[in-house]
Amino acid sequence: MENRTMLPSVSELSSRIARGESSAETLARALMARVQECEPSVQAWAWFDAAHLLAQAIDFDERRGRGEAGGPLAGLPVAVKDIIDVAGMPTEDGTVLHAGRIADSDAAVIAALRRAGGLPMGKTVTTELATYAAGKTRNPHDPSRSPGGSSSGSAAAVAAGMAPLAIGTQTNGSVIRPAAFCGVVGYKPGFGCIPRAGVLTQSPTLDHVGVFARSVEDAALLAQALFGHDARDPATRPLPAPPLFDIARGEAPALPRFAWVATPWWDRMARDAQAAFGGLLERLAGAASPCELPTGAADAIGWHRTIMEAEIAGSYEREYERGRDRLSDSLRAQIERGRRITAVEHRRAVERIGPLNRAFDALFSDFDAILTPATLGTAPRFEDGTGDPLMCTLWTYCGMPAVSLPLLRGGDGLPLGVQLVGRRGDDARLLRTARWLVAHLENP
Amino acid sequence: MENRTMLPSVSELSSRIARGESSAETLARALMARVQECEPSVQAWAWFDAAHLLAQAIDFDERRGRGEAGGPLAGLPVAVKDIIDVAGMPTEDGTVLHAGRIADSDAAVIAALRRAGGLPMGKTVTTELATYAAGKTRNPHDPSRSPGGSSSGSAAAVAAGMAPLAIGTQTNGSVIRPAAFCGVVGYKPGFGCIPRAGVLTQSPTLDHVGVFARSVEDAALLAQALFGHDARDPATRPLPAPPLFDIARGEAPALPRFAWVATPWWDRMARDAQAAFGGLLERLAGAASPCELPTGAADAIGWHRTIMEAEIAGSYEREYERGRDRLSDSLRAQIERGRRITAVEHRRAVERIGPLNRAFDALFSDFDAILTPATLGTAPRFEDGTGDPLMCTLWTYCGMPAVSLPLLRGGDGLPLGVQLVGRRGDDARLLRTARWLVAHLENP
Repeated sequence: MENRTMLPSVSELSSRIARGESSAETLARALMARVQECEPSVQAWAWFDAAHLLAQAIDFDERRGRGEAGGPLAGLPVAVKDIIDVAGMPTEDGTVLHAGRIADSDAAVIAALRRAGGLPMGKTVTTELATYAAGKTRNPHDPSRSPGGSSSGSAAAVAAGMAPLAIGTQTNGSVIRPAAFCGVVGYKPGFGCIPRAGVLTQSPTLDHVGVFARSVEDAALLAQALFGHDARDPATRPLPAPPLFDIARGEAPALPRFAWVATPWWDRMARDAQAAFGGLLERLAGAASPCELPTGAADAIGWHRTIMEAEIAGSYEREYERGRDRLSDSLRAQIERGRRITAVEHRRAVERIGPLNRAFDALFSDFDAILTPATLGTAPRFEDGTGDPLMCTLWTYCGMPAVSLPLLRGGDGLPLGVQLVGRRGDDARLLRTARWLVAHLENP
Repeated sequence: MENRTMLPSVSELSSRIARGESSAETLARALMARVQECEPSVQAWAWFDAAHLLAQAIDFDERRGRGEAGGPLAGLPVAVKDIIDVAGMPTEDGTVLHAGRIADSDAAVIAALRRAGGLPMGKTVTTELATYAAGKTRNPHDPSRSPGGSSSGSAAAVAAGMAPLAIGTQTNGSVIRPAAFCGVVGYKPGFGCIPRAGVLTQSPTLDHVGVFARSVEDAALLAQALFGHDARDPATRPLPAPPLFDIARGEAPALPRFAWVATPWWDRMARDAQAAFGGLLERLAGAASPCELPTGAADAIGWHRTIMEAEIAGSYEREYERGRDRLSDSLRAQIERGRRITAVEHRRAVERIGPLNRAFDALFSDFDAILTPATLGTAPRFEDGTGDPLMCTLWTYCGMPAVSLPLLRGGDGLPLGVQLVGRRGDDARLLRTARWLVAHLENP
């Protein structure tokens, strides 16, 4: 893959389109060509119709010419994970059980995307029901490798340059992990920031919508358009959305400080990944200080599993009842474990989320972000599955905002993600800190 | 009990106190005398300290004189159910397991009460952990009868004239039922209207804070002061509170229409109660039309039980582990059933709440309120327990606002409550409709 850092930012692209200096049609045609070139090897798309994209782009340009279309994402095609409803497009959720299902209305995020001028570009491959069993997508950096999951196609489409932006979801490590394996920016906002109405429900307590982009600013621009309140998603609040994009681009009031968290799972990391992080810490010198997790934080892995399995069992009850023979063995086993979890056990696990977030408060009063690995190493071989989400579980459980930055490489030359994690509720500061880190490492 | 309808409204009382035409001290002394007179037979109080009340009242008057105190509840003592924390007062939750516990801070509702000028008057008797096992309180209309539960003391204190207002809670029928048995107005607002921080958690999905008063306007005045958002209670929303009091006192834009719901449990009602409701419907003539419940609504009884038992088992896990021998047999059995409920069963029951509320939409576009019995009959004998909450369960499950009005009497001369139920989110209209009904029956 060529170096894409020289491509214009999506805000620049959309500004040019909004001013009529470029057109949505030109951009769409360029992306269509890129899809034709890359898709045979990458297979990021569950559904892509070039004519449909072109028609949307031409329609956008016409409306723009009449002064009826614009917005921060003016004319930008955005790839959409195939568990998110786009009216008129299939949503098949990565399972044969939902084959042929056509969405009859837009998910909340798609409605928001259209209001901001964006064009839903097509549907990207998800693992089975957004859990672990892989889809067809290959890693754009090496087709013998996994792109990660569950938002496999969204990460791969952006990495391959087929889409400038993509939307995915994360219940354990499904945005951060594929972003890290594919070498793009993945941003999972704090829990409740982006409404989930019209998105397949896996685990109401843990499901997050997130985004993929080539840069932190690009991710901020898309996420800002998606943040908001929706009465259909009780995790969202009727509060003003933060100006993510402006804050992410702004100067920090002081040099950011990073809490380096090696995690209790450091010994399970690949040697080359350990070495890459060692090098990163040397380059950061005084800006990063080693920190321990609060007491009991490692137990979040078990609490997360209790919640996720119990809630998967509830969410996929109908699929299990009607077609358990067409579920993967691993998902069937998860559901069967989940069905045995009691309401009291589930609640006990949910009720640790608040106290654990508060236990991080002291750390976040001294540091701007936690710096930690996004994965245990580079992308696994395709036939070995989508990789271990372990390095994401704690942060997802807590609902903290997290971003994966493609700043390192493994011994095999493949991308390694640097994960930054922010305090819950402090997404904008996290993105500003992330942008500082990228710039600092490019121009120390 | 004498007829108390000629007493001044609490808004009139508080206005006089706020203007200095009367004083909090005068009111407190009158109530202290009333407590001395009634408490030996009624036993509404778990904790009452006359000197403490007097000191609060004198302090209020002094601050008022300096222009530092006022508010819509200026100088009004309010009785508080003994599962709600008042800083410095005991909160013993109706169980020996919590004996001697002193609250170190105010519940959200108590902080709101003080901001509005109200004085927490003392703690009123609750059943065991706000479930079914009765406390010591007797029905003020007949000491051989139960006051109902679980907010037994709050209802009895207002009925006996010992408190002008009281705060209680409802998870099944714990505001409406005691209000009906004691012949006062009980108002259980919609779910999420009043924050529950600092209130004993029984069932997070079903717990509501509610109020007791002598009139609908009085209930509206107190409730309006308690409505609000509190980040510690995720059921509350950061939305403006409705002007309950002004709307409740205002004229309806058209004559209200009532949907008479005899309920699927009509046959379980006492004959004299059936006859009393028959007479009421005759008096209402064209204003009330018989309506059926939406399909499946009767199943709410089972869904409610699943949620309540599973959540009681979680909420009272520590009490069960440490002192199950000091719990009542019935609560121990509830907890043991609750511990066996799976997370999937619990969620299935919770997920019917939204659709069932929507199934009532058609009805509420034709009618202002549902008119239905508050209880199966008048207060049971003291030794037979606090009565059946059956007539409240469906509305509590749905989180709809409900009010009990002391408009009828049974064959034994004891009060019977008329329950009005409003659309979720439409509390103010419900109270305006309730006030119309009371006025209409007094002056048809």
